[in-house]
Amino acid sequence: MNPILPLLRGASLRRPLKLSSQRISRAFISTNPTSIAGFLDFKPHEAVSDVKIDGFVRSVRAQKRHSFVSLGDGSCVESLQAVVPADQAEDLNIGAAVRLHGSWIPSQGRGQSHELQVERATVLGPSDSKTFPIQKKYQTPEYLRTLPHLRPRIPFNSAVLRFRSEIIASLTKFFSNRQYIQTHTPILTSSDCEGAGEVFHVSAGDHSSSPSKSETPKSFFRRPVYTTVSGQLHLEALSQALGNVWTLSPTFRAEQSDTPRHLSEFYMLEAEMSFTDGLDSVMDLVEDMLRHICTDLADSRIKDELLTRTGERTSDLAVAEQVSQRWEGFMRKDWPRITYTEAIELLKLADTSFVHSPVWGEDLRTEHEKYIAMKVGNGHSPVFVTNYPRGIKAFYMKANTDDCDKSLPGRTVACFDLVVPDFCEIAGGSMREHRLENLLESMHTHGIAPSTSPNNTTERSQPPENNLNWYVDLRRWGCPPHGGFGLGFDRLICYLSGVQTIHDTSAFPRWYGRCDC
Amino acid sequence: MNPILPLLRGASLRRPLKLSSQRISRAFISTNPTSIAGFLDFKPHEAVSDVKIDGFVRSVRAQKRHSFVSLGDGSCVESLQAVVPADQAEDLNIGAAVRLHGSWIPSQGRGQSHELQVERATVLGPSDSKTFPIQKKYQTPEYLRTLPHLRPRIPFNSAVLRFRSEIIASLTKFFSNRQYIQTHTPILTSSDCEGAGEVFHVSAGDHSSSPSKSETPKSFFRRPVYTTVSGQLHLEALSQALGNVWTLSPTFRAEQSDTPRHLSEFYMLEAEMSFTDGLDSVMDLVEDMLRHICTDLADSRIKDELLTRTGERTSDLAVAEQVSQRWEGFMRKDWPRITYTEAIELLKLADTSFVHSPVWGEDLRTEHEKYIAMKVGNGHSPVFVTNYPRGIKAFYMKANTDDCDKSLPGRTVACFDLVVPDFCEIAGGSMREHRLENLLESMHTHGIAPSTSPNNTTERSQPPENNLNWYVDLRRWGCPPHGGFGLGFDRLICYLSGVQTIHDTSAFPRWYGRCDC
Repeated sequence: MNPILPLLRGASLRRPLKLSSQRISRAFISTNPTSIAGFLDFKPHEAVSDVKIDGFVRSVRAQKRHSFVSLGDGSCVESLQAVVPADQAEDLNIGAAVRLHGSWIPSQGRGQSHELQVERATVLGPSDSKTFPIQKKYQTPEYLRTLPHLRPRIPFNSAVLRFRSEIIASLTKFFSNRQYIQTHTPILTSSDCEGAGEVFHVSAGDHSSSPSKSETPKSFFRRPVYTTVSGQLHLEALSQALGNVWTLSPTFRAEQSDTPRHLSEFYMLEAEMSFTDGLDSVMDLVEDMLRHICTDLADSRIKDELLTRTGERTSDLAVAEQVSQRWEGFMRKDWPRITYTEAIELLKLADTSFVHSPVWGEDLRTEHEKYIAMKVGNGHSPVFVTNYPRGIKAFYMKANTDDCDKSLPGRTVACFDLVVPDFCEIAGGSMREHRLENLLESMHTHGIAPSTSPNNTTERSQPPENNLNWYVDLRRWGCPPHGGFGLGFDRLICYLSGVQTIHDTSAFPRWYGRCDC
Repeated sequence: MNPILPLLRGASLRRPLKLSSQRISRAFISTNPTSIAGFLDFKPHEAVSDVKIDGFVRSVRAQKRHSFVSLGDGSCVESLQAVVPADQAEDLNIGAAVRLHGSWIPSQGRGQSHELQVERATVLGPSDSKTFPIQKKYQTPEYLRTLPHLRPRIPFNSAVLRFRSEIIASLTKFFSNRQYIQTHTPILTSSDCEGAGEVFHVSAGDHSSSPSKSETPKSFFRRPVYTTVSGQLHLEALSQALGNVWTLSPTFRAEQSDTPRHLSEFYMLEAEMSFTDGLDSVMDLVEDMLRHICTDLADSRIKDELLTRTGERTSDLAVAEQVSQRWEGFMRKDWPRITYTEAIELLKLADTSFVHSPVWGEDLRTEHEKYIAMKVGNGHSPVFVTNYPRGIKAFYMKANTDDCDKSLPGRTVACFDLVVPDFCEIAGGSMREHRLENLLESMHTHGIAPSTSPNNTTERSQPPENNLNWYVDLRRWGCPPHGGFGLGFDRLICYLSGVQTIHDTSAFPRWYGRCDC
């Protein structure tokens, strides 16, 4: 006899006895909601008995015979009211993780249509309420940022994280329906997209005790390696293999800035369109995508929660009406598109006095973008500003042709910034220089050492500083016209949630001096 | 009069003239496919004229009056045949990006049902075929890995990347339907999940010229910072705020290994279930998830392509029948679950002789896992092996109770490894130690300095070496029973695509000595 059989039989015997909560809920109480959000939407006329609700105690109001417990589980901002007999309420401290059994009944009190009449309360995770750092009273965002591991428990903060999740799901659907391939562009890279120095260096070995005597940053990968500042260059390579591609990927900047708009680690949403002749296609994509997200979530609970927040957190957030207008702006059709040159003309005609005078050839300042958003977009619609001067944009952007001699590169590049009311630039894109000679000329103009012969980078023992030979290579063997965009994902979350600083859009924000856990 | 109006009127006048290819295709030729995959499925009885197809030349067979051009665009492995008049075929070199206009007609030749009869061919991106490094003849995977920017153009390689994309979309759907919140766990971290030393250090400033004299790794973030090895600890914090959560996030190991199973940068799929009592729930989730992916893609083109590959790449791949069995294995119901102790007993009874004798208390070796997969899973079904000895597993795993004294921790922890046929371990999970005292005891046992008082980490000027106080904190204020799993996403791609080494599952793989662009 096979000696394995008895053991296996033993194993399979155990299976019907499994008491996983999931299996139970499917089989026996599948009609009951499984989250507090679900219960708050569940409004039966009669009491429903034998109900189980898990959650965290948000507040307790003890009375003689009962305690009124507000319960949350992160599924919604609103709390569920549970009426707990005094003898069951003993350890229901603020913050505690509890399981409540009882009946879901139409409520006698005001403030809720239904409440849980508790028969039995079990503390699954006790809480020392004396030391619990999260208080029901107002606490400043700055204080809460010192508690990144606890801060998402605040209902509005958890709503922002749920919003993040729903936007990702919506984006994934959007791109998948259009046959865009989602890719994982690399985090560690030996190429420097922008040519700027604000990167984090990566090295192996234990630096904390004796900083890099024997271990130079080169040694693990045999070359200097950084955390990426953008996936764009790699995305271009992939678009030549896969067609239209996109990525939502972490990117990094080692900037020593502490502003509401900058993080050291943030997510970039980037897409690259292949075989595309015109910048308008890329702007159409951005417009369609943002309209899709907002339309998709227009009637969602999460949007309601972001817009109808009340109480103590309000002062840290943009006014609800303003946030509502942002959503409406994204859902509008045909966003205005004006050229940079037109924008400069508008600014010069403006009856506003700017701190910085608008000058053709210099980048638009925040005050300029604000004016454009107000005048051209009427403060409602996002506005595309296109065709910036060549000198202030990146080397990889495709030059527009000269107005007089079409064979020469002109003064501007085929690019855009997307400017939104009261937030300014939120996305940028361009056609890429897909012609070998033009790219080399542009790199030269931008002071980036171009490569002069076909070369695969790995054969070089000493790669050039910026290691962009592979990027030039892409133009040697079948590079169609293409273009794409990048959008700061955390900024988008800020904009549509009303959160005022980017430090509060992700659970564990990293910026200068801050990498807390 | 408002001076802005004329400009805006000019701007809006331009809009109807927009000639983006997207708008055109929607309006005028919306019935025609937009990709080569679409055309290959499009089999009209009559010729369809005025067709435009973009793609890359995979091969050219020149005859006197015509050239037969194989065209690919990354949307499928198969090529489209285009018959190009000799006078139009001049620059159609291998690798070139071209736009072909003509008629889509039923083919006279063998090998395809339809072909494109080209009237006009335009080279959009020329290719220097003499230097093009990708050849139609067989090239070793190792050689191709030196060309990461070009390698995805090989049809099977692009299929693997499309597969990656489709799995992500399917996973996103799976978790979204179950109300799991997708989160972005941090990449840069000051906590060390495993307590091991194999991490990359991150620092700001220019290291390449003068390695860290003035700049120590601490200075930018005021503490040592690493690239993460796992999002689990952060995911646990989030599960206490949001309920069930998941992430698909880059993780890093600075291991100096060059094996087919290791990368320095790879994606981990991790999920954490809140308010869950039993390990079975977590295993159910893994099982349901993998079954969902395979069922979702069972009839897809991508699965066909992965399984019916032919020609020169075959020798680098697992046999198609084997890969097919893997898919079937994942679609089976009720995967066997046996305990580690049962596994050791089975191994001791085995009539196979192992290089390493099975010993209770030591980790299972690959040869052992292979045997278990074969004997328990019959070589078809994945197998969960549960409840490993405490001493060989991580500090955060929840101890099972002692058989004799239920108040004491036992010899094993509530964990599992998922073992799959001919590939061994692909995922692992556990219940987490959610009780404060037990966690502190476990950290002590595992030689990790525990914190003894409630403390928020940011108030300390000298954080402890592993900076896990915040993780301990989670147990002080409402930590329900919870558990989760981690799955090596790139390994999953390997397993289901038949690719033999993990270096070939992502576009820009990084491993010891390799970070090419």
